[in-house]
Amino acid sequence: MTSSPSGPHPPGGLAVLPVPGLGEIRRGDDLATLIAGQVELLDGDVVVVTQKIVSKAEGAMVPIDPDDPDDRLRIIESESVRVLRRRGDLVISETRHGFICANAGVDLSNVERGWAALLPEDSDRSARRIRDGLRAATGREVAVVVSDTFGRPWRKGVVDVAIGCAGLAAVVDLRGTADAMGRDLVATEVCVADEVASAAELVMGKAAAVPVAVVRGVDPDWLRRGSVSEEILRPPAEDLFR
Amino acid sequence: MTSSPSGPHPPGGLAVLPVPGLGEIRRGDDLATLIAGQVELLDGDVVVVTQKIVSKAEGAMVPIDPDDPDDRLRIIESESVRVLRRRGDLVISETRHGFICANAGVDLSNVERGWAALLPEDSDRSARRIRDGLRAATGREVAVVVSDTFGRPWRKGVVDVAIGCAGLAAVVDLRGTADAMGRDLVATEVCVADEVASAAELVMGKAAAVPVAVVRGVDPDWLRRGSVSEEILRPPAEDLFR
Repeated sequence: MTSSPSGPHPPGGLAVLPVPGLGEIRRGDDLATLIAGQVELLDGDVVVVTQKIVSKAEGAMVPIDPDDPDDRLRIIESESVRVLRRRGDLVISETRHGFICANAGVDLSNVERGWAALLPEDSDRSARRIRDGLRAATGREVAVVVSDTFGRPWRKGVVDVAIGCAGLAAVVDLRGTADAMGRDLVATEVCVADEVASAAELVMGKAAAVPVAVVRGVDPDWLRRGSVSEEILRPPAEDLFR
Repeated sequence: MTSSPSGPHPPGGLAVLPVPGLGEIRRGDDLATLIAGQVELLDGDVVVVTQKIVSKAEGAMVPIDPDDPDDRLRIIESESVRVLRRRGDLVISETRHGFICANAGVDLSNVERGWAALLPEDSDRSARRIRDGLRAATGREVAVVVSDTFGRPWRKGVVDVAIGCAGLAAVVDLRGTADAMGRDLVATEVCVADEVASAAELVMGKAAAVPVAVVRGVDPDWLRRGSVSEEILRPPAEDLFR
């Protein structure tokens, strides 16, 4: 049943395990069942699933004329509530979900020609559904992160971040935990969901078509309900850059 | 000699191992020797070292009046070349190194009262020095990332990113690599140095005083010279958010 590496994580450390072999995902596919067939999960595992296969399984795809750049722009604008910046082909906008990213997350790579993948309608809900399916299929208490690839201001290169989560706190608040010098820490809220997504990306490889990874060994205190939309998305009024 | 977990990484995957037990770091301490005394390194390991202990070892510390908020602001301004935003106590500025971050990286947590830690003068150089020391001490071909904790626009919570690297490409260019559908990928430059820093942070814990971690099993193709300042810092003319 298990074709990918497994085994315990190193004591005090993490293991990050790629889960290949899911095959091409189509609308209606049950990702939880497919993933459970490829990796032996343990209690406390965080299963990171890339947005692309979530969108494909959920049918979050729209037809696009691949030879008409205006068609792509039309889709990006229909997925956006507000455009922050434009330069050439690039649009930085706020999506209707509240993410600020390039091209409203509309993606043509690794998608059948003539189709564009949109972001899932509600990525936290997608994560909850996959988690429920994995728990039912395996009997294991696992968490799920839905990841996507975002650029950042000021820094070149993209990184994977969390766009949905379930069973893992998105942000862990260490405010008030004494630092090693015995004083109070201030404002140390760590976005562990984004860090987990980034760790997972390191074993995925853009071209290798590994759309799932397991992060094994995270702090058990982090394993609680979790929500990207509630914990990570910064309210516009608190934001200094929009 | 080895007090931290070691052993090979899982096949196709990564291991992320905390390296505790370095003790309090003081000016002039040889970090490479201290790290080599706590973990058995393997060829290809990426050793992630937090900025705080690099700054302490290098003496990048300045005295501060802990009861005078203006003194903190004075130090932040002297470390900045340009202020992008201010709100209350928070200053978002461009440092003289070219980083855009909160409070110019000036840090009072886990630092002796009456002192503030600054960013290292040249974090890529710091990474190179530690790497050279580790290679000399262990005979292993390792890479080094110097990490720091940065906030982001639009997303709550901080994540660890790379402020220096040596022996690891900061950004891996997958442009032109065919995607799984056989077409060209465009603009998939992945900032693996930041993802490695984030993965390492997951085993460090803000209050646990684990200032070093080893990321074992990264793609061997990524093990080349590497430079955060050359590869990650986005030139102002290309930047849409300053």
